[in-house]
Amino acid sequence: MRVVDLIIKKRNGFALTKEEIDFIISGYVDGSIPDYQISALMMAIYFNPLNDEEKSILTTAMLKSGEEIDLSLIDGVKVDKHSTGGVGDKTSLVVGPIASAAGIKIAKMSGRGLGHTGGTLDKLESIPGFKIEVDKKDFLRQVNNIGLAIIGQTANITPADKKLYALRDVTGTIESRGLIAASIMSKKLASGADNIVLDVKVGSGAFMKNFEDAKLLAIDMVKIGSSANRKTVAVLTNMEQPLGNAIGNRLEVIEAIETLKGNGPKDFTELCIKLASEILLVSGLYKTEEESHNKVIEVINNGSALNKLKDMIKWQHGDASVVDDYSLMNEAEEQIELKYQENETCYVEQLDALKVGEAVMILGAGRATKEDVIDYSVGIVLNKKVGDCLKNGDVIAILHTNGKNTEKAIELLLEAYTLSSSQPEIKNIILDIVR
Amino acid sequence: MRVVDLIIKKRNGFALTKEEIDFIISGYVDGSIPDYQISALMMAIYFNPLNDEEKSILTTAMLKSGEEIDLSLIDGVKVDKHSTGGVGDKTSLVVGPIASAAGIKIAKMSGRGLGHTGGTLDKLESIPGFKIEVDKKDFLRQVNNIGLAIIGQTANITPADKKLYALRDVTGTIESRGLIAASIMSKKLASGADNIVLDVKVGSGAFMKNFEDAKLLAIDMVKIGSSANRKTVAVLTNMEQPLGNAIGNRLEVIEAIETLKGNGPKDFTELCIKLASEILLVSGLYKTEEESHNKVIEVINNGSALNKLKDMIKWQHGDASVVDDYSLMNEAEEQIELKYQENETCYVEQLDALKVGEAVMILGAGRATKEDVIDYSVGIVLNKKVGDCLKNGDVIAILHTNGKNTEKAIELLLEAYTLSSSQPEIKNIILDIVR
Repeated sequence: MRVVDLIIKKRNGFALTKEEIDFIISGYVDGSIPDYQISALMMAIYFNPLNDEEKSILTTAMLKSGEEIDLSLIDGVKVDKHSTGGVGDKTSLVVGPIASAAGIKIAKMSGRGLGHTGGTLDKLESIPGFKIEVDKKDFLRQVNNIGLAIIGQTANITPADKKLYALRDVTGTIESRGLIAASIMSKKLASGADNIVLDVKVGSGAFMKNFEDAKLLAIDMVKIGSSANRKTVAVLTNMEQPLGNAIGNRLEVIEAIETLKGNGPKDFTELCIKLASEILLVSGLYKTEEESHNKVIEVINNGSALNKLKDMIKWQHGDASVVDDYSLMNEAEEQIELKYQENETCYVEQLDALKVGEAVMILGAGRATKEDVIDYSVGIVLNKKVGDCLKNGDVIAILHTNGKNTEKAIELLLEAYTLSSSQPEIKNIILDIVR
Repeated sequence: MRVVDLIIKKRNGFALTKEEIDFIISGYVDGSIPDYQISALMMAIYFNPLNDEEKSILTTAMLKSGEEIDLSLIDGVKVDKHSTGGVGDKTSLVVGPIASAAGIKIAKMSGRGLGHTGGTLDKLESIPGFKIEVDKKDFLRQVNNIGLAIIGQTANITPADKKLYALRDVTGTIESRGLIAASIMSKKLASGADNIVLDVKVGSGAFMKNFEDAKLLAIDMVKIGSSANRKTVAVLTNMEQPLGNAIGNRLEVIEAIETLKGNGPKDFTELCIKLASEILLVSGLYKTEEESHNKVIEVINNGSALNKLKDMIKWQHGDASVVDDYSLMNEAEEQIELKYQENETCYVEQLDALKVGEAVMILGAGRATKEDVIDYSVGIVLNKKVGDCLKNGDVIAILHTNGKNTEKAIELLLEAYTLSSSQPEIKNIILDIVR
């Protein structure tokens, strides 16, 4: 088999076989196939997209390229939740505790990666003492005992995907739906859960900018999951503006805790309830949407979900009393209120999630390179979001800063807001569900 | 400027600017842009072809990447002839002498490359003593004196094209018309002639398999030539079967000499006359097609074209008496006649040029790798070609062999012939002209 012939075959619009895809992926990982042939193939795939069978084959080939997490020692139904990522996304901190309180086993290993505003692991590390490095035995014991663990990825899962993604990133071949679906699903399948709930973000602040593309991606991923015998559900959610009000690690932990107490922002609360309900439903432990939804509301109202979060913090050596005393997490030195100071009343028409994310990153909350050290305390709380009315003197947002890039962050935040004299339509946070 | 952005720009169907193409080519040659980005870009160009302006810009960028041959010390009009290559193509050995006999200056530097049946340089080297390594001063002196020289390429012309072609060859991106046109024309423009005549081969035995693609390529090349202020003409010629009867270095030299004596095969003679006429016409020294054609016939008939070949052989240290005594060139040990031995009379319907070329190569006439040593004496003479009638006992072809792979060569040669009970249509050797 010659790689150039396979490139030409794909270039000419033919489907690759399992044998051919396996040959390509194993050759790429072992170094016998060079980057320059794979990047040409990826571009050919951009123009002649993978069919459903090729997507499944590629996913499996990438999955098999590395370690697969074995969760068989955990009793019960294991469900994994994955988000395609967005600004202010702290859903795992809420949905994990809710689902485990309802009897589902959540055994989550997260990668670190780069991000505007820190990832789930960074958020958890803003809790004093919290450890994300947990060995596999302790991880399994923790999930068996309390039904919930969120730890750092140590296993070498899907090296093929890592190598491929890095190459695609510099060769203009990221935006291929089949490749995105295979990349996400190979990681999810490798992490060992029985069933999978995907949160596919849509909008200017997300990877998928429009609903049609996002829906097709969701369909792709659900199909790949099904063909690997994992019940998979994708929830399409709105990411035109940041999720919730808080952006920045410590601030997001606080918002997650408030949400588990029943005091979360409307959009974020609605999303968490929906995702948690879908986890319950996909687990098979709950039979109907109504039953799942009611159980989610119950474990929030009776405090058992919040207790699960506390349990997890304790098991992972963190100080669980932060749940009742936020001052135990380092606060930023200064809070700056951004006020609306015009006489004319108006409305927030748009709120650019990427600009807000960038503002929070330059305050110190995220990583531009792997070596950057995160400042957990900084961030922004948005008092006004899309559709909100602004009157003279209203506080639009509050910056939590330690003095790094404050002025530039304020500038970006102001740029993020688009105002209008008429009240805009507000989109639902839940856009669609693909089962 | 980031390469990935330029890849995405091209991928999305936009044209690249001069600044961008120059940045890419110079970065690729100096090693600052890696192969894997260029191969992705080439595949994007395969799907979103270069426009006319981009083709010219790319050609110039590749041309400027290396040395340009300065022929200004040669008096008179310098015309270059280029063939896209085919089995049995020895036209340079005939057309060069004719054109120089008519007063045109032919200063040809050839690359060696790989080929089924040897290149022009290999053919010339089957003449005892003939030197293709000539230094630049002697080369210019020779052309000024006799109007003709064919020597080996020593200058480092178009290194960008060399690097790019090698990459395209292994990444499935050869078959992009704009890239092919830019590759050929960058080399032609670098070799310094005033005007250019292109022989674009079409058919199963050529790089361009069908007429439409070949014509579009011809149009591209003529446009690129014109935009570089070189009068450029492309002749589209039939390559469904080998050109002429002789294939193999020594045998092709003999056929070329016979053609200059007026005894060449019909198809090959017709092609040489046409190409030579176009060279005369494009030079501006002859004003009409008729005048050019008549001059070509004149220099063949009066022997002055043959004398030019002799002059060139002498100037390049060869034994010019081969022109009258072919036995001075090493003959193969054995000649094997391939006979038609059926009672039923029939016709040659097809004659696969690539199979014939392969047969001649395995006899030892060509190079599969750069290190292979060529056997100048071996080859095949085709007595029967498309349209010819076969009767029991007729000799179809004669193999000249030194015993290497003889049986396999015979097998290939038999496979090359497709017979039919009815007489097939014979295509003209000249298919079209693009000016």
